Amino acid sequence: MNSLDSLILLFAKLPGLGPRSARRAVLHLIRHKDKLLDPLIATLAQTQASIRTCGVCGNFDTSDPCPICRDTRRDASQICVVEDIADLWAIERGQTFKGRYHVLGGTLSALEGRTPETLNIDTLVTRAMAEEVREVILATNATVEGQTTAFYLSDRLAGCQVHLSRLAHGIPMGGELDYLDDGTLGAAFKARLPVN
Amino acid sequence: MNSLDSLILLFAKLPGLGPRSARRAVLHLIRHKDKLLDPLIATLAQTQASIRTCGVCGNFDTSDPCPICRDTRRDASQICVVEDIADLWAIERGQTFKGRYHVLGGTLSALEGRTPETLNIDTLVTRAMAEEVREVILATNATVEGQTTAFYLSDRLAGCQVHLSRLAHGIPMGGELDYLDDGTLGAAFKARLPVN
Repeated sequence: MNSLDSLILLFAKLPGLGPRSARRAVLHLIRHKDKLLDPLIATLAQTQASIRTCGVCGNFDTSDPCPICRDTRRDASQICVVEDIADLWAIERGQTFKGRYHVLGGTLSALEGRTPETLNIDTLVTRAMAEEVREVILATNATVEGQTTAFYLSDRLAGCQVHLSRLAHGIPMGGELDYLDDGTLGAAFKARLPVN
Repeated sequence: MNSLDSLILLFAKLPGLGPRSARRAVLHLIRHKDKLLDPLIATLAQTQASIRTCGVCGNFDTSDPCPICRDTRRDASQICVVEDIADLWAIERGQTFKGRYHVLGGTLSALEGRTPETLNIDTLVTRAMAEEVREVILATNATVEGQTTAFYLSDRLAGCQVHLSRLAHGIPMGGELDYLDDGTLGAAFKARLPVN
């Protein structure tokens, strides 16, 4: 097998890419050697050398602690707990939350053998004990596993002197009622708010 | 901008990947450093150093001429003309064709300023002049531009002593008549064959 075939096999392992799109991506890379292949190799090598996991929140960054944990303008009294780094990045893109994060590294799952010990839960409890922390926002996904994990966390954090909250469920912005599932509609009815 | 952000931007430039899937791919790479990131960097560097365009047919490979052009067991009397290297690879996966290839590097397009001079047409005419070549199969895409290019090629190759052919149009294997477009159905009717 030559390097071209190995390269296609490696690309096909990335999420969202199959054998066909991997071939297209590799062809595109070779065709745009100067503008894409060369910078990609340099940037990958740079990332490989410099990337680390933030010892505080679990985010990936080139520095440890990560810029979010170091940023003194951010509110240290709030910790937003997410399953995954991708969720942290998504919330950061939204630019609404100005506190700190904690990445669990997954959800609890009896079926797949993910016990509390495999997640960053102990470090969360330790962080929540700190005096400056006043609120822990459980921002796990609205899936069965995400909600189970949130339930377990609320149990573990019960002893800490923090206010526990979770993200609101309801109709997504731009959503049409006709296309929504019953669960979301039900949650939106239950959490209905007075029109002032 | 740190290396992580640059990496995501570079991945987002690959065909089939957008900003969101690029982020997912980069996260996946960092998470699987040993199994994916490290081999990817090595294989990309190897490809970058060793890849060349075959001087005969225009294929990408680590050697020039490419293995297909060097393979003496392949039929040198047939040249299959394709628009793109991806088409060559697709035909090779099918394992039906045992001749040689010629990659045009695109199609003619007055709108996008792609004139005959920008494609590998002169080299094709030279190859078709060779004594051993008996058939040139025009395997350009069944699009307006592909067919225009095939028409132009048949004109250019008229002087050579070669048999010109094109791929058959018709119902794809597994295709349902109900879902086919009128053009394909019409072509399939026109090219209908006697049942023995």
